[in-house]
Amino acid sequence: MIKASSFSLNSGLFQDLITKFVVPKQHQKEKLYFLSGDPTYYGHVDLKMSNQGYEIIKQAIMNPNNHSLPSQSEGTFEARCAVAKHFQGPNMQLSASNVILTHGANMGLLNVLYSITNPGENILVPEPGYPFYHLTAPSMGVEIRPYKLISEKSFEIDLEYLQTLVDGKTRFLWIVNPSNPCGSIFSRDHMEKIFEFCQKNKIFIISDEVYWNESFLNYEFISFGHMATEQVPVIVLGGVEKTFLVPGWSISWMIFFDKADRLRLIRNAAVPLTDYFEGPCSFMQSALPKLLDTLTPNYTKNFMGLFEDNYNYLYKEFANIPGLTPIKAQGTFYIAVIINLEQFKGFQKDLDFLQALLTEENVWILNLSAFNGNIHGFRMMTCATQEIYEKLLPRIRDFCDRHQKEVSS
Amino acid sequence: MIKASSFSLNSGLFQDLITKFVVPKQHQKEKLYFLSGDPTYYGHVDLKMSNQGYEIIKQAIMNPNNHSLPSQSEGTFEARCAVAKHFQGPNMQLSASNVILTHGANMGLLNVLYSITNPGENILVPEPGYPFYHLTAPSMGVEIRPYKLISEKSFEIDLEYLQTLVDGKTRFLWIVNPSNPCGSIFSRDHMEKIFEFCQKNKIFIISDEVYWNESFLNYEFISFGHMATEQVPVIVLGGVEKTFLVPGWSISWMIFFDKADRLRLIRNAAVPLTDYFEGPCSFMQSALPKLLDTLTPNYTKNFMGLFEDNYNYLYKEFANIPGLTPIKAQGTFYIAVIINLEQFKGFQKDLDFLQALLTEENVWILNLSAFNGNIHGFRMMTCATQEIYEKLLPRIRDFCDRHQKEVSS
Repeated sequence: MIKASSFSLNSGLFQDLITKFVVPKQHQKEKLYFLSGDPTYYGHVDLKMSNQGYEIIKQAIMNPNNHSLPSQSEGTFEARCAVAKHFQGPNMQLSASNVILTHGANMGLLNVLYSITNPGENILVPEPGYPFYHLTAPSMGVEIRPYKLISEKSFEIDLEYLQTLVDGKTRFLWIVNPSNPCGSIFSRDHMEKIFEFCQKNKIFIISDEVYWNESFLNYEFISFGHMATEQVPVIVLGGVEKTFLVPGWSISWMIFFDKADRLRLIRNAAVPLTDYFEGPCSFMQSALPKLLDTLTPNYTKNFMGLFEDNYNYLYKEFANIPGLTPIKAQGTFYIAVIINLEQFKGFQKDLDFLQALLTEENVWILNLSAFNGNIHGFRMMTCATQEIYEKLLPRIRDFCDRHQKEVSS
Repeated sequence: MIKASSFSLNSGLFQDLITKFVVPKQHQKEKLYFLSGDPTYYGHVDLKMSNQGYEIIKQAIMNPNNHSLPSQSEGTFEARCAVAKHFQGPNMQLSASNVILTHGANMGLLNVLYSITNPGENILVPEPGYPFYHLTAPSMGVEIRPYKLISEKSFEIDLEYLQTLVDGKTRFLWIVNPSNPCGSIFSRDHMEKIFEFCQKNKIFIISDEVYWNESFLNYEFISFGHMATEQVPVIVLGGVEKTFLVPGWSISWMIFFDKADRLRLIRNAAVPLTDYFEGPCSFMQSALPKLLDTLTPNYTKNFMGLFEDNYNYLYKEFANIPGLTPIKAQGTFYIAVIINLEQFKGFQKDLDFLQALLTEENVWILNLSAFNGNIHGFRMMTCATQEIYEKLLPRIRDFCDRHQKEVSS
């Protein structure tokens, strides 16, 4: 047998997390799947790209000039202009040169890692948080230094603790806002403190904003890019995947908010890497300007009401199940729920609870420990229909009942 | 200024080659561009995807289920089955599990590197040849050992020299067949010798076949995959880009021809890497089975006649220009031409010649030295119209005339 590389053996992502579950071969109960991060999973009629969007892509296909290799591997000039125009915000005028297109936001994260960091350096990553760099960075010889999000304070960053992590080898602060898995969104006030921190420590920000503008009604989403300063530049990562409900399209971008041109070398390094990490499909790039003009980044407001209703409904239901404590969110299409393990019999960690739930009830939910940070619980999507939830909730309720510790009266 | 990584500074690809040219700001002559490897560049009416193909993609877009994240990051089961069915060849039955989809063949090359090699190991790469690993591999601590293609013997591999390169740290032999830049195609006889070599040395083959089936009329293209043995498994890389004349689509694949299951660990390592290196756009994957059923890998035969005519025409024309020697090809849409530098005044290398050609004539052609291997010449595409060539050839002829050394009579 021919051996695989050490890199590959040490750098699996969610596939590894999922294979930790022992999967029932057959099950008499209907499979209810909430593992993924795909808001279109349940095919909810109100959760899809508009027909206008499909038509724009179809038109782009019919133009025979749209199937060649884009002459610039970082994306066509027109597509990059369009991203600049729609995401620049009120305080800074961007141009095509501030934008690099990537095929999927993960490719943006990878490009950031490859274009910025060297072996022996370190980066600051959130816990709990999307664990992209937990395996990729060490495989490149780059150390991750996990910082804490405080669950009691709407998952704000513990800045005091963060201060203890920074040294001369720290390259950037990685932020995921809105948060996966918590659905929390930073306030302007907290963001200002983060910028102060970065300025003081001379580090810049990589802001992963794939859940761009996905805030509930009374909360404001502010892009870190829009608060970038001369001293603290920001690279924002985003894309159409979650913002326009087309996770399979992989039209994504890196936007350089760089008032004092401090990131020029990084950008110059990131562009040639797009020769390897090829950009989005050619006709999708051609369609992007019209797509953004037609849908606008405010597209999210069409569906956030639905997610908020589902979130509120599930919050109330979970709050009434002994042993479960739902987490307050300000946006996204997730609800995160803490499992109070001490109230249950025989579960040492969230994975034990969720494995039993899978085995007994054929309910698939992602463990919060997959996001690190010592919170035991689960994250599930809020994108299903009422009908599905009415099947799901009794199963979870019964399951929790069965496994409760008996309380001495 | 914030510094970029060493990795990024050392791993640029063609963008770096191109920026070595000093580009004229304005030019009174019309720009004639033959640098890229895109057969659709000149919009030749006979060099495009058929309308049937566009319609299949449009249908896929209208299905609202085709925009979610494919549940398997290595590609949908149906798309992988389709690739297996159409590319398995006569001697081996493949299934979905033998196929991984990638977004562009470069992502396949990168996946190969990452899933197989460790720092300190080495790989065998062709010169002249597509220089993908010349920069990427060393950046990962992997040594490249360039082997020689013999120009006098239709660019067959110098197997005697190859033998001197192999040691216990050699992981695989990388082959690009048909060849970029030479347009040469290995004969069955030579391929048998390569398999003997690999069996004797216990190495396997990565066969880059992005120019799949692009042979001229009297030449046969044979996939290395179709000759794979129990002892010498083969991973074939390919895609729709060049085979169906849609370079911008980036629907590509890795096919494991692995009779004795020797590559199982490699495949198991390569699959999780597709979590980072995301696969092709979702609705393109949905369309792929019908696309392959409709067009079939024999699609290339529709346009190879045109390339062969253009090749023969250009061959004859270049052969008549003193100082130029066109190289015999058996396929692809390139013609490679040797520049006999000693016949010209003041050119030390091919880049000097081509820079002067660009400056004086606004003709953009890629230097053969970009492909390494100490051959000074140029590679150009054979995809333009007669009209374009009739503009191009007099300019090259005049240029060569002007720069000829004076011969003492």
